[in-house]
Amino acid sequence: MNKGLVIVLSAPSGCGKGTILKEILDQSEDIRLSVSATTRSPRPGEEDGKDYFFLDRKEFEEMIQNGEMLEHAEYAGNLYGTPKGPVDAWSEDGIDVILEIEVQGGSQVKEKLPDCVSIFILPPSFAELNRRLHKRGTETEEVIRRRLALAKAEMEHAEDYDYIVVNNDLKDAVEDVKRIIAAEKLRYSRCSDTVERVLIDAETV
Amino acid sequence: MNKGLVIVLSAPSGCGKGTILKEILDQSEDIRLSVSATTRSPRPGEEDGKDYFFLDRKEFEEMIQNGEMLEHAEYAGNLYGTPKGPVDAWSEDGIDVILEIEVQGGSQVKEKLPDCVSIFILPPSFAELNRRLHKRGTETEEVIRRRLALAKAEMEHAEDYDYIVVNNDLKDAVEDVKRIIAAEKLRYSRCSDTVERVLIDAETV
Repeated sequence: MNKGLVIVLSAPSGCGKGTILKEILDQSEDIRLSVSATTRSPRPGEEDGKDYFFLDRKEFEEMIQNGEMLEHAEYAGNLYGTPKGPVDAWSEDGIDVILEIEVQGGSQVKEKLPDCVSIFILPPSFAELNRRLHKRGTETEEVIRRRLALAKAEMEHAEDYDYIVVNNDLKDAVEDVKRIIAAEKLRYSRCSDTVERVLIDAETV
Repeated sequence: MNKGLVIVLSAPSGCGKGTILKEILDQSEDIRLSVSATTRSPRPGEEDGKDYFFLDRKEFEEMIQNGEMLEHAEYAGNLYGTPKGPVDAWSEDGIDVILEIEVQGGSQVKEKLPDCVSIFILPPSFAELNRRLHKRGTETEEVIRRRLALAKAEMEHAEDYDYIVVNNDLKDAVEDVKRIIAAEKLRYSRCSDTVERVLIDAETV
């Protein structure tokens, strides 16, 4: 059996990563979303192992030390990260896994899993990103300015990624991500088992 | 503007490469088939520069010496090869080019154009290839045996290629090739211009 793909999906602030991810997961039964770990307390209704792996700081830091976190970062005093174990286990079982990773974490994952496929979502233009953030009408001018500045800084990380998908039209962007996943599964390095099978079969004819 | 892709398509004898290629070219206006060069004489109706570049042996050998052939081989006393110039020119103009290459030539092209995308077509099984060759009913048992032996030897070259497409169902195989082409155009290395454009645009917001 061929191993499952590990797909890293990142996007600057406001580029529609969440919507694209939801569509991919809804449309593909064979892809699972990896579960992150955090040291923050569970909120009402959150399940351990489903929404997050809830760990105390000591456990989390031990996992970092033992190389058991594919990436991690600290926000507002809490650690967040992606445990390697479950990702490896699914991949070994032939299941494709998507990792939704902050832009800064992409290169950390690539270093630990060189075989992963990393995709960076871009807005069609910065002016369009500006329009989209204003259109929501839910954020102050100051917040939007901060998000734009953050997005700009985050875009500089695009070069750390294998693929670029421009989110101009949601449907096209989802199709692009699906094409990348389908094509990567056809790489010789990932389907040498298939070649082997046909060659062994050739001995019997 | 981003450069056009150079796609190398190869398949063992009897695996349906010609049919897949025809479908790809019919369905995609933006892809051109590279024109081979040969030292054999033109047949009635064949046009120089369209069906083949017809060269004399001296011209052909000079092109090999000058590194102007992406690959070449000799069959039945005639030289056949793929001139590099027109492929480069189309690619520079942003046009995708498909090279239909004998299995043995794939690694020659990869060496001279490391950025090319190479695809190897496989039959679903050797038994199925055997059935397909018999089904045609046009060839003697002896010829079929020789074609099967050749196909088996050719399959050993699969490992020189980037991608494996199994031609089980023609429509699926054509879609696989199209997905590979679409995905490869989204590689960061091929669309860094797009990233650059969005980043420059960010300066103006």
